[in-house]
Amino acid sequence: MARIVMKFGGTSVGDIDRIRNVARRVKAEVDAGNEVAVVVSAMSGETNRLVGFCDAIAELYDTREYDAVVSTGEQVTVGLLAMALQTLGVDARSWTGWQIPIHTDDAHGKARILSIDTSVVSQRLAQGQVAVVAGFQGLGTDNRITTLGRGGSDTSAVALAAALKADRCDIYTDVDGVYTTDPRIVAKARKLHRITYEEMLEQASLGAKVLQTRSVEMAMKHRVRVQVLSSFKDLPGTLVCDEDEIVEKELVSGIAYSRDEAKVTLMAVADRPGIAARIFGPLAEGNINVDMIVQNISADGQSTDVTFTLPRGDLARALKLLEDHRESINYQKVIADKAVVKVSVIGVGMRSHAGVAQTMFAALSEKGINIQVISTSEIKVSVLIAEEYMELAVRALHTAYGLDAA
Amino acid sequence: MARIVMKFGGTSVGDIDRIRNVARRVKAEVDAGNEVAVVVSAMSGETNRLVGFCDAIAELYDTREYDAVVSTGEQVTVGLLAMALQTLGVDARSWTGWQIPIHTDDAHGKARILSIDTSVVSQRLAQGQVAVVAGFQGLGTDNRITTLGRGGSDTSAVALAAALKADRCDIYTDVDGVYTTDPRIVAKARKLHRITYEEMLEQASLGAKVLQTRSVEMAMKHRVRVQVLSSFKDLPGTLVCDEDEIVEKELVSGIAYSRDEAKVTLMAVADRPGIAARIFGPLAEGNINVDMIVQNISADGQSTDVTFTLPRGDLARALKLLEDHRESINYQKVIADKAVVKVSVIGVGMRSHAGVAQTMFAALSEKGINIQVISTSEIKVSVLIAEEYMELAVRALHTAYGLDAA
Repeated sequence: MARIVMKFGGTSVGDIDRIRNVARRVKAEVDAGNEVAVVVSAMSGETNRLVGFCDAIAELYDTREYDAVVSTGEQVTVGLLAMALQTLGVDARSWTGWQIPIHTDDAHGKARILSIDTSVVSQRLAQGQVAVVAGFQGLGTDNRITTLGRGGSDTSAVALAAALKADRCDIYTDVDGVYTTDPRIVAKARKLHRITYEEMLEQASLGAKVLQTRSVEMAMKHRVRVQVLSSFKDLPGTLVCDEDEIVEKELVSGIAYSRDEAKVTLMAVADRPGIAARIFGPLAEGNINVDMIVQNISADGQSTDVTFTLPRGDLARALKLLEDHRESINYQKVIADKAVVKVSVIGVGMRSHAGVAQTMFAALSEKGINIQVISTSEIKVSVLIAEEYMELAVRALHTAYGLDAA
Repeated sequence: MARIVMKFGGTSVGDIDRIRNVARRVKAEVDAGNEVAVVVSAMSGETNRLVGFCDAIAELYDTREYDAVVSTGEQVTVGLLAMALQTLGVDARSWTGWQIPIHTDDAHGKARILSIDTSVVSQRLAQGQVAVVAGFQGLGTDNRITTLGRGGSDTSAVALAAALKADRCDIYTDVDGVYTTDPRIVAKARKLHRITYEEMLEQASLGAKVLQTRSVEMAMKHRVRVQVLSSFKDLPGTLVCDEDEIVEKELVSGIAYSRDEAKVTLMAVADRPGIAARIFGPLAEGNINVDMIVQNISADGQSTDVTFTLPRGDLARALKLLEDHRESINYQKVIADKAVVKVSVIGVGMRSHAGVAQTMFAALSEKGINIQVISTSEIKVSVLIAEEYMELAVRALHTAYGLDAA
């Protein structure tokens, strides 16, 4: 017997038939003798409908009221799923965030979970009752409903699994696991049986939408074993777990890409101490996250070119900030490029193996792809390339690291 | 300065523009220096949508889960109305039933309010903050959400007004007050400035949809002055109040009618002691409310005819029950008639004036309308007549009692 937290997203509970399908999935785990808590999102489209109401009422709304409105989506789903389970003869009851309670801070709209009081729920689980828990929401210290921000239900599930000391947290979604890369781009992409927290975190940060970054961080911190699997197909998924649990480690476990990039080059910046602070200070104040940075060697010792990347959506604002600070930064001109993508190679095996980056550079060079910027971390190498080469680069790297399915 | 509870139903908050309109109405009361609590229903259509989900999931659902689902409708409205008030510069916050809390019993789906803890809300009102309170819902002793049943928001408003010791409870609706009769039938119907609790209660019981019966009972019990007025037109409404507050008492204040009637006659029932118990026992056990009853004089001393009325929707079930108990009741045959209506004359003045019923009988007789059954109470006379005469009867009585507008 195991204690399991199951999580189903909006698509998986998108209509009455799908809620019934989820109930059958839950029943199967109960019939197998497991203690089960289920975390669910709002029915797909529901959160957008509710947010639409808020947007229509006020441009700048009180986030406490926003949370009161938007959190109802999950409350509807838990009630309906509990009913659906009962019709299958499964003892079940719904729990809102405030009923458990799931305590959060008061950062309405993007609250963080502080603690979960599992005393009652844990007792009910032990009695064989399924707990159907509203994801995405909690109770602030002001006794008002909070929400965790978009995708927060993953975080709710992992936090609940940690608090309940669950053996596993199964995240059911519309993909059936974590792949070596996007199967829409590389037909030979393989589903991974296991992936480390660290690698999953890099994948999530790089824009893979399988799991929300914060939920992976939480899983890693509390060592919650997370399984990603399909709500529609009955297939084994991918287990996100500790490195120790992975016997056959691969050098590289995945190739990720992100289209959400823009490149900015400041030409002929006066090369004197404090240059980075002068450039990036204003951007940081404007809440713009600069990612990759490269500073070219100054030929004359007088000036230098500085290139960096940032989220594409922030480009216009960044250019405005740079213009505003033209004098203090002291550059000749600014060049912006939105036709770039970031391609990354991820793998914990890199830690102990040299030459991983070299394989990447060689593979790209062989296809005639020019690398514009490079950045590395302990388990990742990222390059910025022209957007048009994106698919070609991902396929070439997938092959180069031996990830292609047989 | 007064303390006022305002209540707006589903039609009044049916879309974003209407919610804005409600916000303006509330602001006007705030600007006039009043302390204001607002009770709102779900946006029109919303409760039906949510109930539809429940019906689709299960034929017999857990009413605790039903309450979790259906109560979200009001929660959405309170958040949106609080936002709308804030955009008008009015300090406001939303309150769910469990936040206040409004304590109820555990009769999920049709709970009764036990007590309302107004300590915090009262303090906020005194500070000038508008309390936007979800109607129709409360918190059961099991810490789960309860709902009060259809139309329960009226009851929420009156109960809150009683608990807050409010000077008035204003019920905004899609009619602009209480009329002497249905203006769709009698063009000369007049809006009443004031009506007693007792008369309003009779009107509500007789099917007038202006106020829910339970809310009138509660207003009468706690002597809450209730005003019924239009949410769309800026007109004076009708005050429901104590008899003492009404200076110019009218003999009859209204003519009500109900189409929700069916008549059953049992022919040749053996006339011996216990006959009523034998007939009405099975119906009572079947939860069928019998209304008017008449037992004809037995000509031969052996048998009698018994006629009674019941809600039209229960007729089929009642006939089945009578058939099942044919032997024990011992009747010859049963005749059912759905083409009947109940027309009632209501007025507290009847208590002290004789001849009110006589005026009714004379007026109907003059129009050639046959009275099938009669029943009376202290402040009401009801007659059952053939459905086709309904409009004619209501108009004749309206004139006979001098209610026609000039």
